[in-house]
Amino acid sequence: MPRIAAFGEVMMRLQVPGHGTLVQSNRLEYSFSGSGVNVTAALAGYGHNGALITTLPETPVGEAAIAYLRKLGVDTSLIYRGGKQLGMYFLENGFGARPGRVTYTDRLGSSFNTAEAGNYDMVALASRIDVLHLCGITLAMNEGVRNQMKRLAAEVKSAGGKVVFDCNYRPALWGADGYAKARPHYEELLELTDLVLMNEKDAQFILGFGTGEYDRMAQLKQAIPEVVERFEIGTAAGTHREINADHTHSLTGYIYQQGTFLFSRKLTFPVYDRIGAGDAFASAVIHGELQQYPQQQTVNMAAAAAMLAHTTQGDTALFTESEVLRALSDHTVDVER
Amino acid sequence: MPRIAAFGEVMMRLQVPGHGTLVQSNRLEYSFSGSGVNVTAALAGYGHNGALITTLPETPVGEAAIAYLRKLGVDTSLIYRGGKQLGMYFLENGFGARPGRVTYTDRLGSSFNTAEAGNYDMVALASRIDVLHLCGITLAMNEGVRNQMKRLAAEVKSAGGKVVFDCNYRPALWGADGYAKARPHYEELLELTDLVLMNEKDAQFILGFGTGEYDRMAQLKQAIPEVVERFEIGTAAGTHREINADHTHSLTGYIYQQGTFLFSRKLTFPVYDRIGAGDAFASAVIHGELQQYPQQQTVNMAAAAAMLAHTTQGDTALFTESEVLRALSDHTVDVER
Amino acid sequence: MPRIAAFGEVMMRLQVPGHGTLVQSNRLEYSFSGSGVNVTAALAGYGHNGALITTLPETPVGEAAIAYLRKLGVDTSLIYRGGKQLGMYFLENGFGARPGRVTYTDRLGSSFNTAEAGNYDMVALASRIDVLHLCGITLAMNEGVRNQMKRLAAEVKSAGGKVVFDCNYRPALWGADGYAKARPHYEELLELTDLVLMNEKDAQFILGFGTGEYDRMAQLKQAIPEVVERFEIGTAAGTHREINADHTHSLTGYIYQQGTFLFSRKLTFPVYDRIGAGDAFASAVIHGELQQYPQQQTVNMAAAAAMLAHTTQGDTALFTESEVLRALSDHTVDVER
Amino acid sequence: MPRIAAFGEVMMRLQVPGHGTLVQSNRLEYSFSGSGVNVTAALAGYGHNGALITTLPETPVGEAAIAYLRKLGVDTSLIYRGGKQLGMYFLENGFGARPGRVTYTDRLGSSFNTAEAGNYDMVALASRIDVLHLCGITLAMNEGVRNQMKRLAAEVKSAGGKVVFDCNYRPALWGADGYAKARPHYEELLELTDLVLMNEKDAQFILGFGTGEYDRMAQLKQAIPEVVERFEIGTAAGTHREINADHTHSLTGYIYQQGTFLFSRKLTFPVYDRIGAGDAFASAVIHGELQQYPQQQTVNMAAAAAMLAHTTQGDTALFTESEVLRALSDHTVDVER
Amino acid sequence: MPRIAAFGEVMMRLQVPGHGTLVQSNRLEYSFSGSGVNVTAALAGYGHNGALITTLPETPVGEAAIAYLRKLGVDTSLIYRGGKQLGMYFLENGFGARPGRVTYTDRLGSSFNTAEAGNYDMVALASRIDVLHLCGITLAMNEGVRNQMKRLAAEVKSAGGKVVFDCNYRPALWGADGYAKARPHYEELLELTDLVLMNEKDAQFILGFGTGEYDRMAQLKQAIPEVVERFEIGTAAGTHREINADHTHSLTGYIYQQGTFLFSRKLTFPVYDRIGAGDAFASAVIHGELQQYPQQQTVNMAAAAAMLAHTTQGDTALFTESEVLRALSDHTVDVER
Amino acid sequence: MPRIAAFGEVMMRLQVPGHGTLVQSNRLEYSFSGSGVNVTAALAGYGHNGALITTLPETPVGEAAIAYLRKLGVDTSLIYRGGKQLGMYFLENGFGARPGRVTYTDRLGSSFNTAEAGNYDMVALASRIDVLHLCGITLAMNEGVRNQMKRLAAEVKSAGGKVVFDCNYRPALWGADGYAKARPHYEELLELTDLVLMNEKDAQFILGFGTGEYDRMAQLKQAIPEVVERFEIGTAAGTHREINADHTHSLTGYIYQQGTFLFSRKLTFPVYDRIGAGDAFASAVIHGELQQYPQQQTVNMAAAAAMLAHTTQGDTALFTESEVLRALSDHTVDVER
Repeated sequence: MPRIAAFGEVMMRLQVPGHGTLVQSNRLEYSFSGSGVNVTAALAGYGHNGALITTLPETPVGEAAIAYLRKLGVDTSLIYRGGKQLGMYFLENGFGARPGRVTYTDRLGSSFNTAEAGNYDMVALASRIDVLHLCGITLAMNEGVRNQMKRLAAEVKSAGGKVVFDCNYRPALWGADGYAKARPHYEELLELTDLVLMNEKDAQFILGFGTGEYDRMAQLKQAIPEVVERFEIGTAAGTHREINADHTHSLTGYIYQQGTFLFSRKLTFPVYDRIGAGDAFASAVIHGELQQYPQQQTVNMAAAAAMLAHTTQGDTALFTESEVLRALSDHTVDVER
Repeated sequence: MPRIAAFGEVMMRLQVPGHGTLVQSNRLEYSFSGSGVNVTAALAGYGHNGALITTLPETPVGEAAIAYLRKLGVDTSLIYRGGKQLGMYFLENGFGARPGRVTYTDRLGSSFNTAEAGNYDMVALASRIDVLHLCGITLAMNEGVRNQMKRLAAEVKSAGGKVVFDCNYRPALWGADGYAKARPHYEELLELTDLVLMNEKDAQFILGFGTGEYDRMAQLKQAIPEVVERFEIGTAAGTHREINADHTHSLTGYIYQQGTFLFSRKLTFPVYDRIGAGDAFASAVIHGELQQYPQQQTVNMAAAAAMLAHTTQGDTALFTESEVLRALSDHTVDVER
Repeated sequence: MPRIAAFGEVMMRLQVPGHGTLVQSNRLEYSFSGSGVNVTAALAGYGHNGALITTLPETPVGEAAIAYLRKLGVDTSLIYRGGKQLGMYFLENGFGARPGRVTYTDRLGSSFNTAEAGNYDMVALASRIDVLHLCGITLAMNEGVRNQMKRLAAEVKSAGGKVVFDCNYRPALWGADGYAKARPHYEELLELTDLVLMNEKDAQFILGFGTGEYDRMAQLKQAIPEVVERFEIGTAAGTHREINADHTHSLTGYIYQQGTFLFSRKLTFPVYDRIGAGDAFASAVIHGELQQYPQQQTVNMAAAAAMLAHTTQGDTALFTESEVLRALSDHTVDVER
Repeated sequence: MPRIAAFGEVMMRLQVPGHGTLVQSNRLEYSFSGSGVNVTAALAGYGHNGALITTLPETPVGEAAIAYLRKLGVDTSLIYRGGKQLGMYFLENGFGARPGRVTYTDRLGSSFNTAEAGNYDMVALASRIDVLHLCGITLAMNEGVRNQMKRLAAEVKSAGGKVVFDCNYRPALWGADGYAKARPHYEELLELTDLVLMNEKDAQFILGFGTGEYDRMAQLKQAIPEVVERFEIGTAAGTHREINADHTHSLTGYIYQQGTFLFSRKLTFPVYDRIGAGDAFASAVIHGELQQYPQQQTVNMAAAAAMLAHTTQGDTALFTESEVLRALSDHTVDVER
Repeated sequence: MPRIAAFGEVMMRLQVPGHGTLVQSNRLEYSFSGSGVNVTAALAGYGHNGALITTLPETPVGEAAIAYLRKLGVDTSLIYRGGKQLGMYFLENGFGARPGRVTYTDRLGSSFNTAEAGNYDMVALASRIDVLHLCGITLAMNEGVRNQMKRLAAEVKSAGGKVVFDCNYRPALWGADGYAKARPHYEELLELTDLVLMNEKDAQFILGFGTGEYDRMAQLKQAIPEVVERFEIGTAAGTHREINADHTHSLTGYIYQQGTFLFSRKLTFPVYDRIGAGDAFASAVIHGELQQYPQQQTVNMAAAAAMLAHTTQGDTALFTESEVLRALSDHTVDVER
Repeated sequence: MPRIAAFGEVMMRLQVPGHGTLVQSNRLEYSFSGSGVNVTAALAGYGHNGALITTLPETPVGEAAIAYLRKLGVDTSLIYRGGKQLGMYFLENGFGARPGRVTYTDRLGSSFNTAEAGNYDMVALASRIDVLHLCGITLAMNEGVRNQMKRLAAEVKSAGGKVVFDCNYRPALWGADGYAKARPHYEELLELTDLVLMNEKDAQFILGFGTGEYDRMAQLKQAIPEVVERFEIGTAAGTHREINADHTHSLTGYIYQQGTFLFSRKLTFPVYDRIGAGDAFASAVIHGELQQYPQQQTVNMAAAAAMLAHTTQGDTALFTESEVLRALSDHTVDVER
């Protein structure tokens, strides 16, 4: 059975319950998440072993994070301890026309982002990994983390493993001239990537591909093949999201391999918790590829998993394959008893 | 004033608050319900005396159940004490495409389902009942309960009372070949029934009537008169439910008496808590019949009561007649002050 | 910078959390509000100084009210202490076809409504006020409060200040023959008013204007100019609300000045908490007028503020101008991070 | 079986959970209580039928009160509906040296206290009562309520029933010169009383007996016999409370009949919720008298019941006789399983 | 590193929060525990690998149990799935003189207690276990479980492992003539035991040793050596508990090996949550033995661990060795910052 | 009326409710505090104007902090906005032998601690301050904050104001060789100090005074006069704390002025929330000095205020003078009603 690992930060999510604001409330609900957490937990839910590679402080908060990851089913045996704190973010839910708000604390001072160059034994880690998941959010942190990320990807490749890279470009993290700053790092990682999660915006704005078309779909169909060819990537996948006037969202998934695009149906649904849906999509694509499912099935399941992630409390969607298949079969079902 | 009683089990409902799952949460909200509870409480809300005939354990949990029933307005003076425990079920709310989940504990070991044949003084009970409500869920339990149920129905009939029977067929309770197992028991009870709650699916699958038509409405119009004639039942009533793409539900009520079908308007509404809506419909039909309202009014009120039950937290809908009439008048009303 | 004050009662709001009823629950969430509270807090959110003139008891409940007002940003330095208690109301949320319910305790015994004639130093207060906000709810209380209200308005006018009056007619407060009882008091206040919040229903039913038309819009266009001319009011503003079949609400704001009506777009939105939306509209109109914004911008912002108030927990909407402008720009935005 | 009723007000208790204050918190837990509620509920717990005679408003708050009383086991069939509101009080828990605080709203405007003279059918009520419980708190309300109380006591007596009167003098309710105001009303009621709950302070300050002694016990032994003789009362009972330096409380119960004092052991215990302990003592004395237990057993049980009431959340202590006997046997017991 | 496993049932604990009762409340907090859970989790907290051997249903409740065990750090890889439900118990906290109450549901119908004889591969399990923990509660269940327990102990012994047995006699589980019923099973297990947790009561009542003495300590010193000799047990350990008048508890631990008794200091402390303290003692004894600590240190640490378990919410105490050592050093420490 | 200000950091306190740990729980209660917050809020409670000088981020978390300070009654008009985040700490309550735990996030990155040298207009601030409160915690932060602190103290002195300095030495903040590092900064500030809060430990370990004695009291009596003389300080005050075996604490306050020591009684009390008690003592000393109360009264009130702070939820004690006086009069009082 393939050994899957993700390299990334664990964030503490501090959410105002219900629909109040930080000014109005005096209570928070906390959980621990992050792109790597979400992906390894989702893959654990599909029956794989998913280990997280990260660094957490030796404090009661760090202990709570590890216990929470264990509860999610994440393999915590590759977690290093050190540093002083976790990155945190506060979440205030929106309602209708009132958008939700996310307030970050200083991520750059976290145990993960301040770990020294020699913190991880990259060679030993690479020998324990068949598939490595990396994320563009981690790439935005700082030079130290970027180097660790590239080093680990290179070691995994040279040990015969595969690399999954989710572009996940976040403008707020890269700042002014962000695309220009980000491009060389994205290019460096894409050279090592076997499966990329991206869409035409990433291709255009970060990498400069496919800019000639007006329509999103045309842009996608032009840009993705160019990216895949340029960086010799096996598979690309991603989603188009639309936000509808009635506050439902619609998602369409695509997968591209060997010159062929396959698309899921467009799924439309109400949204309970938006965060983590991209990771749910990525996880299901990885699962489908590992199981060698037909690609149409993979992209269908991935879109359904992303839809389900919108209906789930918390960043981390925990579903079995049968629950995803059932959502895919698209019956509006009554309560079962 | 007629004396109404229901014979049935009290279940403890253990619900994860909000939209989390049992894995995610560490809190439950509990209440006590059951078809008989819901019907007698609803009739109490309409101003009748509704007594529950059941058996509850002499434990703190049993005390809590009785106190809760009293709060609902149920007459608890016909409740027997004995046995060891209540049936329980866990409820996880769904959201959008994610269905809710119900997990039962062992109902068959409950005080109600293990009560011995001689537990109830059937003759004495029958002498205190004008209208007896029975439910197909109880019929699915075990041979002992079925016998008690039939015995009580027969005693009530012979003492001059009326029997209401809600078919409420639950596939999970009857298991494989469920319809075949259930049929003789349903037939036996329908022989004693004055008012039946059912729809064409019950008629077809349990009793084998009305199978020649394709359309639900045609099936209903064929099957119900056949059932009513065959078992010499005074009145039949029931609902058609549709689950819409936007996750609203639609309900249409029917009532059939002396060869005539009357239908309510189709009511469409968002759903807060699905459980107990059928009992709200049944209760309002019983209320309308007891008050000798025109049948069109009865079926209209029953559909409105079922709609309101979907907007109410918990299994047990508590409304006054004026609240139901107001919902029926179908204004979308602003908050009142 | 203009000094703004509102004269009005502080109510304690006791809300059943979630969607249960007072019968079902055993918990309440409390806050403190009132038309004057909502307006001065909203204006504080827009950067003004907003002081509340009221009377609160010297009890732990009165202390809690003052602390809450301070948290909202209301200037509490003009609050008098005395009397025995606050007005209170219980709020049970509705869902879909089930309307919410509001139950008041005895407002007339509150510190505000029992304050004696000489409680406030009207001349000193007037010297500290450039803009005074008054509300028709206060006018409905009793003769003593009405006299205080009129006296304060007159003093403010004679000291060179402006008076804003929100008609806010509440049938339940005036009782039988309410319109006839209310008319002389409304007329007296409108004589002192510079900016009135009202719509055609107020004009028709309270004042007897514009009764010849069938259509609401035609009624508005007939009645408002008549009222403005009759009472020599500078500006009138108000909203039309529609409640849609899918339980969303729609609002259209208007402003009328110097013979010209300007209307906002009709905004349609889901409703989280209905109470306080009218005060949010009024506050934004006052803010726009104080800032001398173009009236089209003022009415647009006011409608958007009212819409946002529907998405906010509690009576009192707390928004910055930039949040209102953003809601006005009407993108359905995803969560920001 | 004797029919027991209490005449008194139902109050809504609004408690800040935990140890915060109204300024700090935003949540309340509510319940419904009152001396009559506590006594009838406690007697229901001992297996008697206990009915409350009161008036409650026809509002959602009144409905919630009735449902709550039903849950407590109180017979609600003698409750009248009318008026506008309930009396309420806010409760902030203390801790150690910080005392708890109680803030009342206007009790005098409650449905009970504003009920008109003809509200109750006193003759019909008296015909349904064997034992009537009255309380000095009710006597402090207003002339109307006092008259109803005396009238009902007189009717019960003339119909052959017994009257229990708990002196329960509350200085805050009687105001300045309270003892002088209260004396004639207390005297009038004591003339009708069969069983009085009081101690030497009541005898001294309200009635002017037993003032010659320095020591509490000596005062008690002098004053109680004088009171009993003067008013021809069958039985007197009451408690001495001490508050210890470690914040535990100590209680000693007494009972006096036919010239003999009997005392319980002094019980010392930590306090969870102080309110309602006197009613628990009174209830157990009534129960003991009704069961014709030996008076030593009655006073022992009453002291133990009062102790248990201090360990119980809420005003209303709900215990079975066997739970009281067990507390009396005074083992410090480990958890049972 | 030694591989430790426990064989036992997972119970769902459903606790009324705070100090209310099931009648008063509508909320529960749930967790999952059991003697084997507590011991393996505590050993995980000390840095060992602790696996639980049990059977859990494939339901959302079973999933929640497994996730909870993972969070505790328990190795869940030896858990079998099957059956229908978990054993459950309801817990109402006591206060002072009011004892807590525990209400069990039907444990005998649980997945663990209904697992068939061939459910576990005993030989394979034994090959993965160096130390096996068993508990007298499991022995009380039914013949099937007893046989599995004995079979597993025998296999572990024959594979060279050690057996720890905690007598944990629960009268309620064995019923009438419980000691006589239990004796042969206890004897059979003690024949296989290397480390026994027991005290003089177990020795006397179950096994019939040491009955000649009056004083508990003398009884202990007589009985334990006899038991150890008779069954050729390496080590015996246990505690004496006293419940003090001020509701604090006192514990004294003992350990007996090679003819020598060693005792801890008597520790006196307030109690937050009583359940699971015995398992905390047993876990620390196992840890001390595995680490080959001096026995005086082991018994000291075990007593301190048991004390800490009384201060911890939930059945399962989670401490590091350094936290136990610190509690042992017995400073009353201020908050650290 | 004197204008009081404190210069210091606002921390966000994130507390696990009840007695669980961060591993066990998923909820936090948050508030905002800090030495300067506590002191200005307490002085506001005594009727003074207390302004906080600090820097807070322009984020929803910063808004929540300001709203919370307003609720406490703190004057927020001297607060600067800038930087990115607040310092935070997590608090897990202990119980009995289990100590509470505090986990800090990175304070040094907070808005306050990263504010640039020119952030505050020191001259303008000094012109608005009669009494300035400073704290040793702030002195431990970094060179920038220390310079701001010293600069502000110097400006206040040269503008004729008074400086209060609370030594508040925290070993964890100064690290290895902390006393040596801290001494020159403490000396520099003491040169500017009019009223110092300290005890003999501060004098010995930070400043090197009074080291010749064995007994705490003798050390105090030797060291404090030396410090006061050396730095020409008007008044010194402080407390001795003892932690008793039954987990109660005892406090004795002292005040020293013009060669005379005055002591409060030793107060012994149970502890609900330890944090903030020192600030409550300091605030009451400042209040007493401002009111020119006799010093014996001042130290008595300060000790009582510190005791009350231990009984109060949260860091910030909010009492009126009459509540403090009442606690001082030391009756163990029953609930008042």
